[in-house]
Amino acid sequence: MATHHHIALIPGDGIGREVTPAACAVLDAVGARHGIRFSYDEFDWSCARYRELGAMMPADGLDRLRHHDAIFLGAVGDPGVPDHISLWGLLIPIRRGFRQYVNLRPIKVFEGVPSPVRGAEPGVVDFVVVRENVEGEYSEIGGRLNRGFPEEMAVQEAVFTRAGVTRVLEYAFTLAGSRRGRVTSATKSNGIVHTLPFWDELVAETAVGHPAVGWEQEHIDALCAKIVLEPARFDVIVGSNLFGDILSDLAAAVAGGIGLAPAANLNPEREFPSMFEPVHGSAPDIAGRGIANPLGAIWTAALMLEHLGHVEAASTVEGALVEVLAGTGIRTPDLGGTASTEEFTKALLEFVR
Amino acid sequence: MATHHHIALIPGDGIGREVTPAACAVLDAVGARHGIRFSYDEFDWSCARYRELGAMMPADGLDRLRHHDAIFLGAVGDPGVPDHISLWGLLIPIRRGFRQYVNLRPIKVFEGVPSPVRGAEPGVVDFVVVRENVEGEYSEIGGRLNRGFPEEMAVQEAVFTRAGVTRVLEYAFTLAGSRRGRVTSATKSNGIVHTLPFWDELVAETAVGHPAVGWEQEHIDALCAKIVLEPARFDVIVGSNLFGDILSDLAAAVAGGIGLAPAANLNPEREFPSMFEPVHGSAPDIAGRGIANPLGAIWTAALMLEHLGHVEAASTVEGALVEVLAGTGIRTPDLGGTASTEEFTKALLEFVR
Ligand SMILES: CC(C)[C@H](C(=O)O)[C@@H](O)C(=O)O
Ligand SMILES: CC(C)[C@H](C(=O)O)[C@@H](O)C(=O)O
Repeated sequence: MATHHHIALIPGDGIGREVTPAACAVLDAVGARHGIRFSYDEFDWSCARYRELGAMMPADGLDRLRHHDAIFLGAVGDPGVPDHISLWGLLIPIRRGFRQYVNLRPIKVFEGVPSPVRGAEPGVVDFVVVRENVEGEYSEIGGRLNRGFPEEMAVQEAVFTRAGVTRVLEYAFTLAGSRRGRVTSATKSNGIVHTLPFWDELVAETAVGHPAVGWEQEHIDALCAKIVLEPARFDVIVGSNLFGDILSDLAAAVAGGIGLAPAANLNPEREFPSMFEPVHGSAPDIAGRGIANPLGAIWTAALMLEHLGHVEAASTVEGALVEVLAGTGIRTPDLGGTASTEEFTKALLEFVR
Repeated sequence: MATHHHIALIPGDGIGREVTPAACAVLDAVGARHGIRFSYDEFDWSCARYRELGAMMPADGLDRLRHHDAIFLGAVGDPGVPDHISLWGLLIPIRRGFRQYVNLRPIKVFEGVPSPVRGAEPGVVDFVVVRENVEGEYSEIGGRLNRGFPEEMAVQEAVFTRAGVTRVLEYAFTLAGSRRGRVTSATKSNGIVHTLPFWDELVAETAVGHPAVGWEQEHIDALCAKIVLEPARFDVIVGSNLFGDILSDLAAAVAGGIGLAPAANLNPEREFPSMFEPVHGSAPDIAGRGIANPLGAIWTAALMLEHLGHVEAASTVEGALVEVLAGTGIRTPDLGGTASTEEFTKALLEFVR
């Protein structure tokens, strides 16, 4: 009897609506091979919905998602809708409401996808950014004083809690233990003297419980430089909400573009569904033309499979990705090819089956 | 009659003590050619001083600097002294006490210094990072609660004032007006919803007064990616204290390493002396061996000349930098050569005279 998973699907806006079907096609194909059945509940939550109804999702949105095994989100965003509405009306409430405190972003250079950085070769660059995903610098605490006057000011409070930082560090050290055993912690405790020295102390404390894992810390400015200069040296990089965001986009660029980059918003305790979303945005400039690169969404689907316990199925998908890139010339335009989303997906499905 | 400038010299620690004499030799040589005389007051303020006397500088340190025409700082830092002491005991009090609210960091790819990024060619990559230097995320406001207990937390408040942000934006837009007329503002107003939307508004307001300057804004994550993917597209990038710090280190790496990168901490109103310091640190690993790259310090000296009104002398120095790199194989080990600090400086002096 096949395992059956109920997936909440939020295609979102722009190319999100084009890459989500590609990811589902891959899930169905790999499911057929490995005895897994998926059913999808589709939600039209998006900027389009906001324009029509005045809200990105209904008031009981989280309740409608709560009993699914996982959430798959394509991309959200629209030039006509301010970012803070699209994000704080959908993405961020889900991350926070479902305690998805780990944002996991694997970085790999694939054969057949040239890196903009010299020496960043396939097989050599292979690391994971673990980003704190629910507290830190992305905080609702703060505001504005004397609006419009010369003495106007804005303040914003970054909040780091022992519980919140420790749990994501535990995740990072444990993950490193199952990989090459090396954690790099992003900090800036020389300039940001309250929250980041606290972060550094918690890294040192967490490390004590993982004696087999080596670790180092780097200031975020120097670390960004090293991601370009020595991308091969990293195994697991862990950073705060803001630093993890910056590092994962930069690293994705080094690996050949954010069209490829996957992300998982994880609730490791499985109290709530986790959410899977490619790193790329809704790309309004190319939306509707059928040429979006579905690679990020498909790799993201592999992360979802892994989270759902289907490690073999996940590696079938990843293997297919590697083979279609290395073994065929089929590429979407962002990677210099001429294939459509559908053609690329079709080619990849050959390797999945 | 020669103009006479009184320079406060703070060689600092490690290679700071090796690159500062190189910068002075260049200043003296270019001064002889252009009719400028420099006298130097040397201050031993450093981590070494902290170890001996318990303070990075004397209590009246700022008063001792106040009447100089400019401050030249080599590098500060020592593995035995916590960063927050070396920085908050010297560098940051000078930046803040002398209202050096602009941190200026030019980025150029030189012929003869290969970039780690494909396509980043000399002549093509030439931009300036303008960093807010006295407020923002580097704030003393914040603290720790419930130290050592499970409910422990740390908070840190970023503070953005209208006056503080507007003046650095004015500087950036004016600078762009004298260059290629394009400002890129670093933001993250989608995630950081109090301070950065305020920053964005002030950018739009400032732009109104500079109709000939084009501008765009980019979220810091995407902007870091673009610095790697399209470094040639930038003219002036302006960012907050933290974002400017990250962007300038990353950009320096793209341009071939922070050994080359110069920085000026400017008080544009000239109420107080400005401070000039290369971006690189004290590099304890190579200190004392006479192999430090003096390029960053020498380029920094050129920025000081410019600030002191000697535009021609500054371009003599920059021209010599270009020629020694393009026209000779002489390089310090960080750039793959075998020259010592002294040999490199000597070669450069040939072009200055
Ligand atoms: C050392 C540190 C506090 C400093 C900064 O971030 O300001 C340095 O990185 C710099 O860029 O000058
Ligand atoms: C859109 C934005 C708020 C979001 C983030 O920074 O979290 C995005 O950049 C991401 O990385 O998922």
